[in-house]
Amino acid sequence: MAGYNLEAIEAAPLKDDLDIVIPTIRSLDFLEQWRPFLKHYHLIIVQDGDPSIKIRVPEGYDYELYNRNDINRILGPRANCISFKDGGCRCFGFMVSKKKYIYTIDDDCFVAKDPSGKEINVIAQHIKNLETPSTPHYFNTLYDPFRDGTDFVRGYPFSLREGVQTAISHGLWLNIPDYDAPTQLVKPRERNTRYVDAVMTIPKGVLYPMCGMNLAFNRELVGPAMYFGLMGEGQPISRYDDMWAGWAAKVVCDHLGFGVKTGLPYVWHSKASNPFVNLKKEHKGLHWQEDMVPFFQNLRLSKESDTAAKCYMELSKMTKEKLTNVDPYFEKLADAMVAWVEAWEELNPPVVDGKN
Amino acid sequence: MAGYNLEAIEAAPLKDDLDIVIPTIRSLDFLEQWRPFLKHYHLIIVQDGDPSIKIRVPEGYDYELYNRNDINRILGPRANCISFKDGGCRCFGFMVSKKKYIYTIDDDCFVAKDPSGKEINVIAQHIKNLETPSTPHYFNTLYDPFRDGTDFVRGYPFSLREGVQTAISHGLWLNIPDYDAPTQLVKPRERNTRYVDAVMTIPKGVLYPMCGMNLAFNRELVGPAMYFGLMGEGQPISRYDDMWAGWAAKVVCDHLGFGVKTGLPYVWHSKASNPFVNLKKEHKGLHWQEDMVPFFQNLRLSKESDTAAKCYMELSKMTKEKLTNVDPYFEKLADAMVAWVEAWEELNPPVVDGKN
Repeated sequence: MAGYNLEAIEAAPLKDDLDIVIPTIRSLDFLEQWRPFLKHYHLIIVQDGDPSIKIRVPEGYDYELYNRNDINRILGPRANCISFKDGGCRCFGFMVSKKKYIYTIDDDCFVAKDPSGKEINVIAQHIKNLETPSTPHYFNTLYDPFRDGTDFVRGYPFSLREGVQTAISHGLWLNIPDYDAPTQLVKPRERNTRYVDAVMTIPKGVLYPMCGMNLAFNRELVGPAMYFGLMGEGQPISRYDDMWAGWAAKVVCDHLGFGVKTGLPYVWHSKASNPFVNLKKEHKGLHWQEDMVPFFQNLRLSKESDTAAKCYMELSKMTKEKLTNVDPYFEKLADAMVAWVEAWEELNPPVVDGKN
Repeated sequence: MAGYNLEAIEAAPLKDDLDIVIPTIRSLDFLEQWRPFLKHYHLIIVQDGDPSIKIRVPEGYDYELYNRNDINRILGPRANCISFKDGGCRCFGFMVSKKKYIYTIDDDCFVAKDPSGKEINVIAQHIKNLETPSTPHYFNTLYDPFRDGTDFVRGYPFSLREGVQTAISHGLWLNIPDYDAPTQLVKPRERNTRYVDAVMTIPKGVLYPMCGMNLAFNRELVGPAMYFGLMGEGQPISRYDDMWAGWAAKVVCDHLGFGVKTGLPYVWHSKASNPFVNLKKEHKGLHWQEDMVPFFQNLRLSKESDTAAKCYMELSKMTKEKLTNVDPYFEKLADAMVAWVEAWEELNPPVVDGKN
């Protein structure tokens, strides 16, 4: 395979094609450390919680900021589909962006170093992941065949080597691992120190727990499926915003023939959230995931659903049909899914004659 | 999860439960370098080619050696199912072993070092892989959750955390990657220098190219499905022995609920075979794999096939039915698959009242 030149990407990091979406309730001082890597990009900041609080953004960054009042004004009656007091509010930023790619990061994540001590350029790696194909139909034992220094191994069918377009790049975390509250409680001191130098495609038909801390995706391909659900204040569940989005988006990618990668790049996750608070937030999710995962594993989207938006509308119907017996919450969620797609389509009208 | 103590395994490396199977046509001097790690184990050497040649085995190793005359004598009319002049003959060693585990290695593979410079104990890692569960039903983004320092991440259903019994541990190779002839020709100087510090389960329903160079498995669980096919002299195909075994064994594992892992440990693969010779050996396979892979991807074994041997008998029928139209060779292969299972069962009679 033709090699992929990381240096070239670093020199031309698609700054006009990518927005960085950050949900926050506090100051964005963490961006100081990110300056060498993120300064060229436009930020979309989604302020959670009290809109009267002033969020400090380090100087020199180009950004737009939306608080709850803005969300209510822009989405009107549909604003209810955006979570309040939960990181899931970030998906509002996905909706108002006009770029091809989104990178979203949590404000307690910092620049990580690779084993040689070099600071990791997360955007360059995510773009590399997104701009090279995925291989969801067959596993390559040397991992990403599109990386420099590697390829498809013996026994890899040639008809599958072209791969498919990549829609999602899921990055990982050194230091504090993304554990649920029970695991946090059992292993309070466990730290992720293992740098696994790999990117791989998650095969078709396989689900994974997508974490929103360090995540990039192609919003033109799957934006409408990247809904972070109804979580936080007024809802019986939190901390499943990214999980819901990950399961739904994976099923949509599998159906539409797009690929999902996980692995590099790493961020440094600095701070474990309080496991007792998390337990309260996620206890229903810990239970419901036993139904949600099989729901996503077993559903089949129809041939008519040939865009992410149509797939997501079909998913909302299935959610109402199949999950409402788990809890009435899912009926509300299904309605919010519809509101989300309608709002997405209003803010992102279909391209006509090459123009918006 | 309870941590897994590698030191303990190194001290008690299950030497009475594992045989090492080595196919060879030459001296086994490569075992000199392996002495610190392999000296405690019993070797089963399968001598390929001219039986009159004397294979030199380094002193101090405990071994049994079988040449073609031995194979013919032991298997009688069924001896035809064992390949001649092809590494696939190694599967004879799987059949005559009485141990729980098999480790098989090629004689051009040497001890590799991890990034800290420490020599890798391949057996210890394979045993660790085989003795901890696999997780084929859902992907864990921090890879093997049973490794020290890691666990299941947030969003991993608790009902799936027990995992399933592991049947196969597929190890990798530094230096010369396992490429097919076309890739060898295009990239003659490519070397694998990337040490990916991970073990992972290949999800259920996903196929992979299994390489026989550095491979361990539980022969009690899947031995009868580890048939390396009809290759080499008198056959139209070579270099697909391990691929055939890998596809079949994966399908059987998926059906029986066993897991397959890939990743660590690495060996140092010293010598690229001649790409022009390989091209001749594998050109039919390069073509046929376009049919073989979909065949294995789409087949469904019946509920009645509840052991590896029964699964493999059913597979032989399907091979005859579905692949003979690709080439008449597959009819011969299907017959050899039956002979293989019959010979396996003769040499490994079912346990009655706790005794063989």
